[in-house]
Amino acid sequence: MNKNNDIILTGDRTTGQLHLGHYVGSLRSRVQLQEEYKTYILLADVQALTTHFDQPGLIADSVHQVTLDYLAVGIDPNKATLFIQSMIPEIAELTVIFSMFVTVNALRHNPTIKNEARDRGYTDLYYGFLGYPVSQAADIAFCKATLVPAGEDQIPHIETARKLVRRFNELYAPILPEPRILTGERLGGLDGVGKMSKSMGNAISLNASPEVVKAKLTKAKTDPARIHRSDPGHPDVCPVFAYHQLFRKENVDEIHASCSQGKIGCKDCKQIAGEAINDLLAPFRERRNYYEQRDDQVKEILIEGTREARRTARETMLEVREAMGIQYFKL
Amino acid sequence: MNKNNDIILTGDRTTGQLHLGHYVGSLRSRVQLQEEYKTYILLADVQALTTHFDQPGLIADSVHQVTLDYLAVGIDPNKATLFIQSMIPEIAELTVIFSMFVTVNALRHNPTIKNEARDRGYTDLYYGFLGYPVSQAADIAFCKATLVPAGEDQIPHIETARKLVRRFNELYAPILPEPRILTGERLGGLDGVGKMSKSMGNAISLNASPEVVKAKLTKAKTDPARIHRSDPGHPDVCPVFAYHQLFRKENVDEIHASCSQGKIGCKDCKQIAGEAINDLLAPFRERRNYYEQRDDQVKEILIEGTREARRTARETMLEVREAMGIQYFKL
Repeated sequence: MNKNNDIILTGDRTTGQLHLGHYVGSLRSRVQLQEEYKTYILLADVQALTTHFDQPGLIADSVHQVTLDYLAVGIDPNKATLFIQSMIPEIAELTVIFSMFVTVNALRHNPTIKNEARDRGYTDLYYGFLGYPVSQAADIAFCKATLVPAGEDQIPHIETARKLVRRFNELYAPILPEPRILTGERLGGLDGVGKMSKSMGNAISLNASPEVVKAKLTKAKTDPARIHRSDPGHPDVCPVFAYHQLFRKENVDEIHASCSQGKIGCKDCKQIAGEAINDLLAPFRERRNYYEQRDDQVKEILIEGTREARRTARETMLEVREAMGIQYFKL
Repeated sequence: MNKNNDIILTGDRTTGQLHLGHYVGSLRSRVQLQEEYKTYILLADVQALTTHFDQPGLIADSVHQVTLDYLAVGIDPNKATLFIQSMIPEIAELTVIFSMFVTVNALRHNPTIKNEARDRGYTDLYYGFLGYPVSQAADIAFCKATLVPAGEDQIPHIETARKLVRRFNELYAPILPEPRILTGERLGGLDGVGKMSKSMGNAISLNASPEVVKAKLTKAKTDPARIHRSDPGHPDVCPVFAYHQLFRKENVDEIHASCSQGKIGCKDCKQIAGEAINDLLAPFRERRNYYEQRDDQVKEILIEGTREARRTARETMLEVREAMGIQYFKL
């Protein structure tokens, strides 16, 4: 542990279960990173509220499900600190402080906010939604994270976090590190259109059964130019071939050749990809099953992780207040 | 105490010393209200940051000065709970939650925000500045305040607070009361132009010495239509006569008549008003002097008040989390 001085902060909005896109984009690397770095993993229930405040039951359920997803893929609670965002009041305090020195227009011009608002059909943005990059900056700063594994869409948010931290350091005292992003791979959806995404309905959940995986693959889009089995395929534009590349360890070149030469049909190819995905998911299902039967242990993991995050948060917040000259007394 | 079930929340931004305008508008009634109501008085240092984040030293100093002002005018720490906003993390948590269900445009259309932004020359608003009515709503809600003594300019903010509380109650559970405003009197400034305001330089600080009060009155604007001593005056439009009305207990009608008939000169009239103000301030100076020599006692008052406010805040926040279904566990 901690061979490297970097501190990792990463996490997910708790608005539903995680899927293969999360795995490829971030979870996979987290399982590696926890071996070498101090790693904080955030169950972002406050950020979930920015879009799902009217479905609080969904958020609470999702905190549980995402925790199971984390444990299932191999996040080790003895190595990484799993914690719930809303249970760290210091994150809210830092959010409020950071909100003083970022302008409304700077947030409005954030391209990811713009895209999300468009995708969700928001015209008049909620104040909390517009400000969620400020909240993210606080997530990063409270634990002095230096490295944030996240998707490319998060680049503007990390830039906001860097600016806020720099501004804080200039105004008060240089106590907060500037975070860097570590972007992961992007996984296409089953529909061959966009990236894999729960809201697009083109995703395979990490807790999908073998049958569901097979059924989902059967319906997956493939190379649209290939009409007949004997037509030569174009694996480099086929979403299913991308799954071969990501999830099969062997014979990927062979599949590429067979498809290009029209020697293997999409049905067979999908079946092989489905098996590869099921091979990947098999140990996840096993670990998930273990924890699903141990509610108390899961709860204890969250309590322990949240307690540890809270200790870190208290220390940072004390430094923040002292830097700002507003640590009037100890309560 | 507590003859009435109303709970009072009131306070001031800690960006400088308080003046006679604050006294007439709010402090005077607080001294009365503390006898009958549970009263929370907020030293709003977080709200001070929205405009003075680049002067943290000023904010910390002002927390001390405003506390002395409160004690000087007769706020009794055994009756009212004096506390520091930034030391109550639950207020930040509630601010973040409330920010989910108010839109950016609703805040932009708030007339007081518009006026303040114009007066301060803000074009691109800071996110925290735009959202300070959300923070105020959290100040009010954390202690379940029902009555907020404040100036008329605060009416739009209380309306925002009412909407946020209603929305919360509809979405989750009806646990937060809707606050009402109790507007105070408005005191004109020494320049006869706007209301008394530190930033306009037309104010008399509550800790002004007798000499400063006299000097300030000497320079005060009076009825502009009165050129010669023998001209009949128009006391009803004269800012100095307004001070007679507010601060002299006797002979106000006599002054009105003398002025109207040109029998009393502005110089004499100002002197009488200055004496009345000094009579008002004399016991304030005495109490202020007492506490100025007792730093530890002042600190203890703030620690005790902040602790009490924090206990209330914790209870409310627990109810809030339970209503939202996100009280996952006790830490």
